[in-house]
Amino acid sequence: MYDKNNVFAKIARGDIPTNKIYENTHALSFYDANPVAKTHVLIIPKGEYENMFDFLHNASTEEQASFWDCVKETAKKMNCDNACNVIANVGRGTFFYQSVPHFHLHIIAGEKLQDFSDIAQ
Amino acid sequence: MYDKNNVFAKIARGDIPTNKIYENTHALSFYDANPVAKTHVLIIPKGEYENMFDFLHNASTEEQASFWDCVKETAKKMNCDNACNVIANVGRGTFFYQSVPHFHLHIIAGEKLQDFSDIAQ
Repeated sequence: MYDKNNVFAKIARGDIPTNKIYENTHALSFYDANPVAKTHVLIIPKGEYENMFDFLHNASTEEQASFWDCVKETAKKMNCDNACNVIANVGRGTFFYQSVPHFHLHIIAGEKLQDFSDIAQ
Repeated sequence: MYDKNNVFAKIARGDIPTNKIYENTHALSFYDANPVAKTHVLIIPKGEYENMFDFLHNASTEEQASFWDCVKETAKKMNCDNACNVIANVGRGTFFYQSVPHFHLHIIAGEKLQDFSDIAQ
């Protein structure tokens, strides 16, 4: 069951202020609080989806289009759409774990600041 | 400029046979030839898109919906939609590089067989 008190749910509802990069009807992006590289941003849907597959199975066509638009516009704004890693961790993945149970996509670019696995587990 | 001779373009056109996992109108998935974990599959659009952002900017709504449907169905078939890493590398990313210039999404799950960075660079 989706946990309404997770930190990204609070950001999505506006209960916690955040430094937004881009926002549209159903999605928004902001800076990761613990960046692993010079550019490290997160994109989340505003709707309550626990992980990527919950989102792909249950979000409406409009919510999904809004989400990918936000991914695209965020990378453009961060000037990293020619060189980055785009990562979604679902549960206990092989390399990295999902730390917050609200679907979020990492975009990581530029100089490495720490090992990703240090914070994702 | 998109390189029509890259290996995933050949797979998409059917010039190279591959062990398909799932296929729909505009996308298909298959096993990574050099798996880094017990489950390591790739999803590609059939259209000619160099990377994720080329795809998000230029693919039609129908192609994009088809692609995410293929991602969803592939993870379901592989029984890893509760625990996996979903990764798209764009150019020379911070952690991993894109080795083939045709947009592909990795789904990685289960026991680790080798370090991802060994093959992605």
